[in-house]
Amino acid sequence: MDVGFIGLGHMGQAMARNLLKSGFKVTVWDRTRSRAEDLREFGAMVADTPAAACSGEAVVTMLADDRAVEDVILGSGRVIRALGDDAVHVSMSTITVALSEELTEAHRAAGQHFVAAPVFGRPEAAAAAQLYIVAAGEPEPVDRCRPLFDAMGQKTFVPGGFPPAANLVKLGGNFLIASVIECLGEAIALMRKADVPPHRFLEILTESLFSAPVYKTYGRLILEEQYQPAGFSMPLALKDLRSVLAAAEAKAVPMPVASLIHDRFLTEVARGNGDLDWSALARLAAENAGLEPLTFKATGSATSGADRD
Amino acid sequence: MDVGFIGLGHMGQAMARNLLKSGFKVTVWDRTRSRAEDLREFGAMVADTPAAACSGEAVVTMLADDRAVEDVILGSGRVIRALGDDAVHVSMSTITVALSEELTEAHRAAGQHFVAAPVFGRPEAAAAAQLYIVAAGEPEPVDRCRPLFDAMGQKTFVPGGFPPAANLVKLGGNFLIASVIECLGEAIALMRKADVPPHRFLEILTESLFSAPVYKTYGRLILEEQYQPAGFSMPLALKDLRSVLAAAEAKAVPMPVASLIHDRFLTEVARGNGDLDWSALARLAAENAGLEPLTFKATGSATSGADRD
Amino acid sequence: MDVGFIGLGHMGQAMARNLLKSGFKVTVWDRTRSRAEDLREFGAMVADTPAAACSGEAVVTMLADDRAVEDVILGSGRVIRALGDDAVHVSMSTITVALSEELTEAHRAAGQHFVAAPVFGRPEAAAAAQLYIVAAGEPEPVDRCRPLFDAMGQKTFVPGGFPPAANLVKLGGNFLIASVIECLGEAIALMRKADVPPHRFLEILTESLFSAPVYKTYGRLILEEQYQPAGFSMPLALKDLRSVLAAAEAKAVPMPVASLIHDRFLTEVARGNGDLDWSALARLAAENAGLEPLTFKATGSATSGADRD
Amino acid sequence: MDVGFIGLGHMGQAMARNLLKSGFKVTVWDRTRSRAEDLREFGAMVADTPAAACSGEAVVTMLADDRAVEDVILGSGRVIRALGDDAVHVSMSTITVALSEELTEAHRAAGQHFVAAPVFGRPEAAAAAQLYIVAAGEPEPVDRCRPLFDAMGQKTFVPGGFPPAANLVKLGGNFLIASVIECLGEAIALMRKADVPPHRFLEILTESLFSAPVYKTYGRLILEEQYQPAGFSMPLALKDLRSVLAAAEAKAVPMPVASLIHDRFLTEVARGNGDLDWSALARLAAENAGLEPLTFKATGSATSGADRD
Repeated sequence: MDVGFIGLGHMGQAMARNLLKSGFKVTVWDRTRSRAEDLREFGAMVADTPAAACSGEAVVTMLADDRAVEDVILGSGRVIRALGDDAVHVSMSTITVALSEELTEAHRAAGQHFVAAPVFGRPEAAAAAQLYIVAAGEPEPVDRCRPLFDAMGQKTFVPGGFPPAANLVKLGGNFLIASVIECLGEAIALMRKADVPPHRFLEILTESLFSAPVYKTYGRLILEEQYQPAGFSMPLALKDLRSVLAAAEAKAVPMPVASLIHDRFLTEVARGNGDLDWSALARLAAENAGLEPLTFKATGSATSGADRD
Repeated sequence: MDVGFIGLGHMGQAMARNLLKSGFKVTVWDRTRSRAEDLREFGAMVADTPAAACSGEAVVTMLADDRAVEDVILGSGRVIRALGDDAVHVSMSTITVALSEELTEAHRAAGQHFVAAPVFGRPEAAAAAQLYIVAAGEPEPVDRCRPLFDAMGQKTFVPGGFPPAANLVKLGGNFLIASVIECLGEAIALMRKADVPPHRFLEILTESLFSAPVYKTYGRLILEEQYQPAGFSMPLALKDLRSVLAAAEAKAVPMPVASLIHDRFLTEVARGNGDLDWSALARLAAENAGLEPLTFKATGSATSGADRD
Repeated sequence: MDVGFIGLGHMGQAMARNLLKSGFKVTVWDRTRSRAEDLREFGAMVADTPAAACSGEAVVTMLADDRAVEDVILGSGRVIRALGDDAVHVSMSTITVALSEELTEAHRAAGQHFVAAPVFGRPEAAAAAQLYIVAAGEPEPVDRCRPLFDAMGQKTFVPGGFPPAANLVKLGGNFLIASVIECLGEAIALMRKADVPPHRFLEILTESLFSAPVYKTYGRLILEEQYQPAGFSMPLALKDLRSVLAAAEAKAVPMPVASLIHDRFLTEVARGNGDLDWSALARLAAENAGLEPLTFKATGSATSGADRD
Repeated sequence: MDVGFIGLGHMGQAMARNLLKSGFKVTVWDRTRSRAEDLREFGAMVADTPAAACSGEAVVTMLADDRAVEDVILGSGRVIRALGDDAVHVSMSTITVALSEELTEAHRAAGQHFVAAPVFGRPEAAAAAQLYIVAAGEPEPVDRCRPLFDAMGQKTFVPGGFPPAANLVKLGGNFLIASVIECLGEAIALMRKADVPPHRFLEILTESLFSAPVYKTYGRLILEEQYQPAGFSMPLALKDLRSVLAAAEAKAVPMPVASLIHDRFLTEVARGNGDLDWSALARLAAENAGLEPLTFKATGSATSGADRD
């Protein structure tokens, strides 16, 4: 199966490599050419334009935000014109429900298929082909893409036949992850000020009712203060919360905790902490409790581009 | 080992029964005499007063709130006068940090020991001896009580030597459970209004990053609308959030999500829904989104007494 | 001076009448033709299309929302094509900062002038020519419009030369009015439940530190439960809070109280109370405190169209 | 009329002086003796103990918080034993509703009268005898104290015969003042980042719907960044919000904006800004929007003692 892959940030890079490893013929493109070139050694072909990555049965996009997707598919990238009849656009970025609705209709009108397949997992999970994939679309194209999903993730969920459902599930999930970060941050600040060892607190949680990866992963990041390099940066988190709230407003669903957390991310971005991982929301809780500003243990360069949580 | 057991609500009843099953000689007391009598068939002796339950090496309390504990231990119940030298008071209720501090000092001054050992788990878990117990106190009396804990729970955590640490861990944990209820409620209301099947959403969560009992248990309660009988009722949840916020204020830790959730419980109590399980916070989220009032599937009588989550 | 007037809801109707009373030659248009016809007896000419109302020196728009303004000016209404060189578009609707920026540029490119001049005041104030007008734009066209403003309002403020500044001031003001409604609602619910006569409480406020129209007007509406007909309805209030938050996000300004109040309006709209005046937010506070649902004293038909606060 | 005056912070000092100016015979006490001595030159007698200030018809207390009032009246200060039959305790401090209820009963049982008479007004207003006084109690003792009120304030309101009503009105009023500070802070941060001159914004507000002292006073403080010396400091504001929330919880009234503002004051106190005026909440809004930390224009020493807003 020939596929195109557009968007080679931390996440996309790792995902494309896993497709190559599994034997797919992959043509890649990124606006930063060097990222595409880096994949040559793994067997990728490099396209000069997004459209040039569209000669296969499917094209995967893994881009930073709505604007990037719109531009590549409907705008100057001209993917929608280049993609063949019956080909599939697999959108794995975390985009808004509104754009997903628009793409569903645009690809349908062009005689193509649209599958929304956003992922859960940080760059480490992408590298290990351990992503969770939420894929929605018509059954046939979703089935056709299963080998791709199997090469990139550990499990694929299908919430329904309407692509935007997958995007909403992803946004809802990101809201829940953010809520875990915020609430752990508040509780850990309390433990710290009351001299209860926070790692004991976390251990009790994760060995009892809260024994899930989300508490383990983010609890560890918070306790180790590993906020750089960002696996998923503040501005991307802010964007996702904004997207949840936009979907919620469109359906008239008040989400007070989502609003509160949105404002916390906005605070961090406004205060110049946009290059930190979204788990650093816990640092804001600590600072607001008067705890000492933490020393960052930066272990690499800041993230950029199409990083995904 | 002879032990007293004071407080026989849904939780206490089940816990005392498990002590009896494990061969402990247990003398029980409850202000509602019939609850104590019900345990005779399992081998319990029934005391006429709290003090009369204090002749053993340890006395366990599992009461509804601070006031009940204060009254039984320091007030008219006279437990602190009846308890022998070197005996242990094991407080398994969810009480405030402030009262725990007071009891630590009062028992020390009386030549006794105080172990705070609040539990995580609903009545079903108590019945199955599957509670998680968080026990703090001096090492020797904590060790002495381990056989008791083993008879009632599946695992015992020791966050430190100062009893109030256990109460704070318990309160922090209850805040986190409440945050899961609230946030799941918000997200599920969104899924429902956007026609994404909520059980599919929950399944995706609990089979990926959120694969923990807290999401499974409360997700199921929310989707099945099992809000009665209450395993843990709204007024008790409100009390616990108030206790978290009191501890947080004492240490100068702002907890905005805890404040928000506190106000949601207060709303439910004010609106006359005090007999529902705390998971019904999700119903408030649904109602505020204009979703139809749900039909309750009451399957028994409302809760009362010292129910614990 | 010949002027066009587009948008004849409760507010626009009254404002156009005041222009006519002051001797201006006014050509009116509304998508509901009868509203325009109603003004014939006061001397208005009736246009068949928005464009047909654009032959004078200025055209005033007083429409419900961004979409209506966009459609009339840039879309099917073709005002921007019909308006003469050097003519002024006076936008008195409460629109977003983003649309105001777009209109500033579009009119400039078309050789026209754009003055943003949103108003403070409810329909009664509009009828009595007692509006407060906030007008921003280049000095010359603003000066040219002063006679219009004088005919419709009691005072005109000029916050600067860039039209969107007026829209932001208006949105900021509406946020503050909404905050007064919400906070009065919370405090009055407390007084009611504590048996402090709420009218005494309001009197103490408005005769001391809070002696401003905003407390008097909204305090009275809340105490008299005059939520219908709506002088300014819930969906319009929701729109304005959304616009404030959009402007705030664009500038990276967290506004937690604005977010909270936005969610309260969203709740009311979702719960089917969209036809009530925005002051009914106080009823939500009362209901959430378990106070009896209030009996509405509807004295007329529900509002619709381009009502403005 | 002979009166005692207990509590000589910024507010009490000025109020006692005004009583002396009006010809009352005043015996003063403060735990900081020098503050009492300072009033000798205005004609005051200085008592060695609180009880020694209780030989007249009335004793006024103006203390920092519940604890100080409890200690002086019911505790070591022994005022309740020293006060004569039929004498009046006029409590002008901002205390909790719960303590006011307790004092009402305690003085009744002692054959004395209790009038709760908290005040609105900052130290400048106290100095100018321009306070607003809210007095509740039995009609006769309230009438007896009117000459005192007239000497200290510009207007006295009587919300009812039950003293705690006055305390609740005062707490409700302080919540509303705090809400004005917070909301002005959020709106002004938005104006600043959007380049709308904030003083123009404030002028528009205070010359239209918001023409009340509360907007003028706090708007000016915010724009001039006069946060030191504190007319009413953060910890006192935090205490008052906590008291509002305690009264609201006792009556089952959710007050989400009050909760949010409480957490903002707690943040400021935790972050070490306890010596600033409560209007500096607006600085937190500015900082959270990434605006430059403001340079303080400290013009004197930090506040302490029984300062009142």
